[in-house]
Amino acid sequence: MYRKIVPDVVTEKSICSLKKEATAREAAENMAAANCAAVIVVDDQSKIIGILTERDLSRKVVANGSDSNTVLVSEIMTVNPDTLSPDDSAGDALELMSSRGYRHLPVAVDGKCVAVVSIRDLYSTVKEALEEDIKETEAFVFGDRYGA
Amino acid sequence: MYRKIVPDVVTEKSICSLKKEATAREAAENMAAANCAAVIVVDDQSKIIGILTERDLSRKVVANGSDSNTVLVSEIMTVNPDTLSPDDSAGDALELMSSRGYRHLPVAVDGKCVAVVSIRDLYSTVKEALEEDIKETEAFVFGDRYGA
Repeated sequence: MYRKIVPDVVTEKSICSLKKEATAREAAENMAAANCAAVIVVDDQSKIIGILTERDLSRKVVANGSDSNTVLVSEIMTVNPDTLSPDDSAGDALELMSSRGYRHLPVAVDGKCVAVVSIRDLYSTVKEALEEDIKETEAFVFGDRYGA
Repeated sequence: MYRKIVPDVVTEKSICSLKKEATAREAAENMAAANCAAVIVVDDQSKIIGILTERDLSRKVVANGSDSNTVLVSEIMTVNPDTLSPDDSAGDALELMSSRGYRHLPVAVDGKCVAVVSIRDLYSTVKEALEEDIKETEAFVFGDRYGA
């Protein structure tokens, strides 16, 4: 069965987002409060301009011994990240993320973020789809006798 | 097919590990250099006493505005983490990690860490195993005609 990014992998929901003028500390506070590993950076029109992850905070703030109160999101974010469309297939998205080493990608509609997908969400969905395929094939093969 | 943690999911290899007296900054530097998201914390006998992840650094250092040069690994690590055995099945390990919300677990032999497994490694292995199952079932169903 074809699984779409929205709603099969994630549903549209409130996104963890902030402006590029926020500090690294504010970003980390937001991420902890929302229990997410990535925040979307948006401009004044709420359009996606960047993405910031726990990995960025670890590598570009902690590993540098920098002060999280003064480092700005704009200095450490990934600018203009790739995005997914709500109608993309889970399988294609997984291929893209795993080949490029992404762990999170924003799902965009007209440049605005409607959800964030993690590679873990995608694996989970694809695994379920495969398990379902196997069940259906087994039912086809074994027919009524299966489970009797 | 039964997939074991070692060698089907990960192979034994040099582990990213450090002592609990290291600083958060040193931990982040090690993680960046080794391109890993978690380090194992070991005692003087090289036994596992904790695990520290990028998430811990983000939440317990950056979000607090703390100085990564003075925060010690012992203050922010998860003490005595669950461990996997090299012979555990990939499927069981995935169940454990996904039910408990772990993203990384050490693989231990006699209390010493021989590998670190991420939930992403496990999903990838389980997905491959399922795809193989499907191919085998299809080959059984369609026999020689398949692919002709």
